[in-house]
Amino acid sequence: MNRIGFIGLGTMGLPMATNLLKKGYHLTVYNRTKQKSDPLQELGAKIVNSPKDVAAACDVVFTILTADAAVEEVMLGEQGILQGVHAGLIVVDCSTVSPTTSKKIAQVLQPLGVEVLDAPVTGSEPQAIAGVLTFMVGGKHEIYERCLPLFDAMGQKAYHMGNHGAGSYTKLANNTMAAINLLSFSESLVMAVKAGINPDLFTQVVSGGGARSGMADNKAQKIIHRDFQPNFSTALMNKDLGLAINLANELQIPVPVLSTVKEMLKISISNGYGNEDVCSVIKCYEQWAGVEVHEL
Amino acid sequence: MNRIGFIGLGTMGLPMATNLLKKGYHLTVYNRTKQKSDPLQELGAKIVNSPKDVAAACDVVFTILTADAAVEEVMLGEQGILQGVHAGLIVVDCSTVSPTTSKKIAQVLQPLGVEVLDAPVTGSEPQAIAGVLTFMVGGKHEIYERCLPLFDAMGQKAYHMGNHGAGSYTKLANNTMAAINLLSFSESLVMAVKAGINPDLFTQVVSGGGARSGMADNKAQKIIHRDFQPNFSTALMNKDLGLAINLANELQIPVPVLSTVKEMLKISISNGYGNEDVCSVIKCYEQWAGVEVHEL
Repeated sequence: MNRIGFIGLGTMGLPMATNLLKKGYHLTVYNRTKQKSDPLQELGAKIVNSPKDVAAACDVVFTILTADAAVEEVMLGEQGILQGVHAGLIVVDCSTVSPTTSKKIAQVLQPLGVEVLDAPVTGSEPQAIAGVLTFMVGGKHEIYERCLPLFDAMGQKAYHMGNHGAGSYTKLANNTMAAINLLSFSESLVMAVKAGINPDLFTQVVSGGGARSGMADNKAQKIIHRDFQPNFSTALMNKDLGLAINLANELQIPVPVLSTVKEMLKISISNGYGNEDVCSVIKCYEQWAGVEVHEL
Repeated sequence: MNRIGFIGLGTMGLPMATNLLKKGYHLTVYNRTKQKSDPLQELGAKIVNSPKDVAAACDVVFTILTADAAVEEVMLGEQGILQGVHAGLIVVDCSTVSPTTSKKIAQVLQPLGVEVLDAPVTGSEPQAIAGVLTFMVGGKHEIYERCLPLFDAMGQKAYHMGNHGAGSYTKLANNTMAAINLLSFSESLVMAVKAGINPDLFTQVVSGGGARSGMADNKAQKIIHRDFQPNFSTALMNKDLGLAINLANELQIPVPVLSTVKEMLKISISNGYGNEDVCSVIKCYEQWAGVEVHEL
């Protein structure tokens, strides 16, 4: 369990892989855009040319990619992990994907003697850098336990949620909550500001009571100081909510509030805020209301 | 400032008035249903027959009533405070009402030498009993400062939000957030449970990250233990959201998420949950999903 692979060196993957290296693990990495591997090579990681080569060289392979199609390609494609598997390999997918994808990967790889976990994370870039992510893990409890030291190297908590797909289910429900709570704060804040209330004072008051939320805590200062640099982009949240709505459809649960929030993110993307932080949706309300939320 | 009046001895008013008595204030009280005054009489309060009589006997009068019409009647009706006013009287309305009502009362009473504050509270019965409410105050800053010892006797924080109506504006925006955050948790929790996730574990995981909310913290155990006794009823929240939507209409701000949440509360009331706690809306989702959220 010392030869670790890492595939996907994006906003989250790069700091996660860096933390594994810093804890002394031997790392073999692959990223589609090769130069993103350079900082890890300097820290001692071995760079290879395909997911297949990562799988062949490692005991445990982590993947973190931005969409279901990319995960399927890396897992099951021509140069994919499937082509480099060996009995005893553990594959841990930290991407936010549909639980259906998580289950499918387990179904294909398990008969080859490979163990699979879905282990998406909460937290964004700052938490990834600080090594304080939370992992939500689906798969066999025994495999989860064996991977705990690796989760600990990158995060502060790892919960075993259930069987294959349970991590992905939890992540989508978690992001559903986060997105709705952000819109909750956005609609309330614009109302308060148009009514003449100081946005800092409003945030302070609502944060002290039953209306408090993590999204208000995390996004209020970004909104008030007009900082729409993405910690988590509108486009990415919109993708996750699409997966959540697919999930609700599969489970046959009407989700009117989630659906409305998804429509608001689509409006935000139409207005050109897809690559900004998801909290830029406030600008849609500001335009409608003819006010701007800023420091007084 | 030692002769205090209190009008409206409901779920919130009774413990608030009790706390004023316990802090040594002389209290004169009126309630439409007279026997609700009995516990206060035993503690030394003087009972009178009308809001007019309360106003005539007091330096400061608090009101906390359930709807705009009741507030207008108590303030401006035939036996109302208006009929018993004297120069120097301060009237503090803690009801959750439309900012328009708050402003109207100030407009009528101020020319008579009466000072008026709108000072709705966050917190429900347990916080009222413990004396840890938060007051959101609109009106003159000087009058807010003079009333601070009284707010302190009933609560732990009192914020001056701005001019007349600013307290009511803040309260409606606050309740908008609380209601949306509750629906956010409800949709996510039912999704997770139907996907086979343990509701206690799910709540623990989401409460540790960006998806956390005060409503998830406050309502999860009530939902899981099927306790729908009202801390705050569906009917009352539905009334508040109606006021919030009126406010959004006046301010000309589209509020698609708030509007959808209001529709969900109407569905909950149609299903017979109007007098239960607002978290009983989960039962609508459970019926649609064919699952029940309970302890595993």
